[in-house]
Amino acid sequence: MNKKDSNSTKQRLLSSGALLICEKGYSSVSVREICSHADTSMNMIHHYFGNKEGLLNAITESYGENVFAFPLKLLSKEPKSKEDFICRIELVFETTLEACIENRLVLMITIREQQSPNALLEYMAGFKAFIDIGIDKGFARKELDSAMITGFILDRIVNQVQFSPWVNDEFGTDILNDQSYLKRWSQSNIDVFINGIAN
Amino acid sequence: MNKKDSNSTKQRLLSSGALLICEKGYSSVSVREICSHADTSMNMIHHYFGNKEGLLNAITESYGENVFAFPLKLLSKEPKSKEDFICRIELVFETTLEACIENRLVLMITIREQQSPNALLEYMAGFKAFIDIGIDKGFARKELDSAMITGFILDRIVNQVQFSPWVNDEFGTDILNDQSYLKRWSQSNIDVFINGIAN
Repeated sequence: MNKKDSNSTKQRLLSSGALLICEKGYSSVSVREICSHADTSMNMIHHYFGNKEGLLNAITESYGENVFAFPLKLLSKEPKSKEDFICRIELVFETTLEACIENRLVLMITIREQQSPNALLEYMAGFKAFIDIGIDKGFARKELDSAMITGFILDRIVNQVQFSPWVNDEFGTDILNDQSYLKRWSQSNIDVFINGIAN
Repeated sequence: MNKKDSNSTKQRLLSSGALLICEKGYSSVSVREICSHADTSMNMIHHYFGNKEGLLNAITESYGENVFAFPLKLLSKEPKSKEDFICRIELVFETTLEACIENRLVLMITIREQQSPNALLEYMAGFKAFIDIGIDKGFARKELDSAMITGFILDRIVNQVQFSPWVNDEFGTDILNDQSYLKRWSQSNIDVFINGIAN
């Protein structure tokens, strides 16, 4: 087996696993089904991931890295001014939203199976530290309890992406299918959060 | 069968249905299992709910009514002053949070099966109308796009209640088991939202 084949088997297992776990739920799907869908033999899942749980972890860790890599970079540098502070939060919102849309399938799995990829915990810690610096420097209101609000942006984004089919059923449009609606939704919610925390 | 027996069979079907659907997922659980768990015969589900889908609807509609009845009342009266406007939103937050905690099992089902009970849609319309009046009267910022932010409070509450076991795993406490944490979380998040929308 050459390197290319090996990568593609692993990738097929990740893709098939994500698809079937999202459709059927982790507990209902079997290793046999995933391997069959990925057109590979049973022992390949053991070779690459140890077992079904190892595959689930690999799927949700890849989600975490894909979604939070760029937001984490944005949060890791100290804000130089109030404008920089606000602009950085806007960018965190926008990039997290884009990444959640791109990784919607794996997002659904991460939520349903209540997984906590390392990158999510890093994001929450990074967000808290960023807000604390903002408070110290007078960019954010001193009344903020940073540890209690780290999920504010993420809850809003994750639910909107998760429930887009429902939003479309009820209101005839959604952020996945309508760029101008996406922009309107995004700006309105950034506006409320920024006004909620800025000094 | 007297009235009391009849009520209790229906109630048992609702309780058993909620428990098993939450544990196994709607598509994986059978009418047979639910009736067996509720200690009643198969035809009772047909008698009271028509079929499995009818039972699911009855479960999620009851959730909607339990959770949104009081918030809807709070939103239906016109706010008289900015203080009244803000106080009413605080109460909506607190009563919705309490109701979601009390109805956690059915909340989980409603989310997972992407149901939209009538009361949820009424709540969203009521919330939008309340914000619009607030903007008109100068209590809320005129830049707000009310239709885009009706889910802000609900997303935050629903996710915190839903992911409480995860929060406890990661941070050693959660809003379901710790009253002082519940109060701290609640106040911090109300504070951000109020500051985000108030004029």
